[in-house]
Amino acid sequence: MKIEIEVIGIVKNSENEPRGQNWKDIASEIRIFEKFKKAVEGLEEFSHIQVLFWLHRAKRDRKMIHPKNRKELPLVGVFATRTQHRPNPIGVTVAELLEIKDNVLIVRGLDALNKTPVLDVKAFVGVDIQNYKVPEWVLRLRNEKR
Amino acid sequence: MKIEIEVIGIVKNSENEPRGQNWKDIASEIRIFEKFKKAVEGLEEFSHIQVLFWLHRAKRDRKMIHPKNRKELPLVGVFATRTQHRPNPIGVTVAELLEIKDNVLIVRGLDALNKTPVLDVKAFVGVDIQNYKVPEWVLRLRNEKR
Repeated sequence: MKIEIEVIGIVKNSENEPRGQNWKDIASEIRIFEKFKKAVEGLEEFSHIQVLFWLHRAKRDRKMIHPKNRKELPLVGVFATRTQHRPNPIGVTVAELLEIKDNVLIVRGLDALNKTPVLDVKAFVGVDIQNYKVPEWVLRLRNEKR
Repeated sequence: MKIEIEVIGIVKNSENEPRGQNWKDIASEIRIFEKFKKAVEGLEEFSHIQVLFWLHRAKRDRKMIHPKNRKELPLVGVFATRTQHRPNPIGVTVAELLEIKDNVLIVRGLDALNKTPVLDVKAFVGVDIQNYKVPEWVLRLRNEKR
């Protein structure tokens, strides 16, 4: 079964090449196409949005990878990671919504390159998970970031 | 620009009709297709997964709605809600991963009907948002649920 997706907008920012994990302070515009302008109404009352976007440079045929391409980390299935390389390379990120100017959303913390196609924007209403468990290699990567 | 998505698995559960917001205790199977079996390896070390699925009964032409179809709530753009009715009806939900049997993931809390096509499964590693703001109508709906 194949499904057809219609792009609803495009990311504009200063990032034309991959930059690892350091996206927190990056500002981006999400230019929603005119056709979908009405769908944005009321979004200004939210401080954060969940953005779905198409990782257009990803490789879709990978089944297993070493996270971050680091050979000392275990070889795991792509579904056990958040790598861009996956059968359907859809990124899902919660970004801060700074401002809306007509059909342009100005956000901070979206980890998407310039010209990334946007598939959906959803109101962010929190994630109600108190406790969760991740493998040791995830904790290791998290500690390195600090 | 059109994008083609390949379905990676299917939801199996007892829910054949919509049931509102009460999905927390519903158990489901996610049957990952044989072709993508290797991509699941290592997922057993996570307690929760983020599931992307195709809301196959949604209407894609809606731009604005009354949330929950309740006329006393404000008319807002679909991007300012999490309604299934949106240009690309992709559901995004964090579910508890109870068990993995071969290529079948057994989860709890996935708000997807029986036979829903699954597009992606991602390791859940938390959402690092301390404070966020939502409109008054979201708070009203949340209070009703309690």
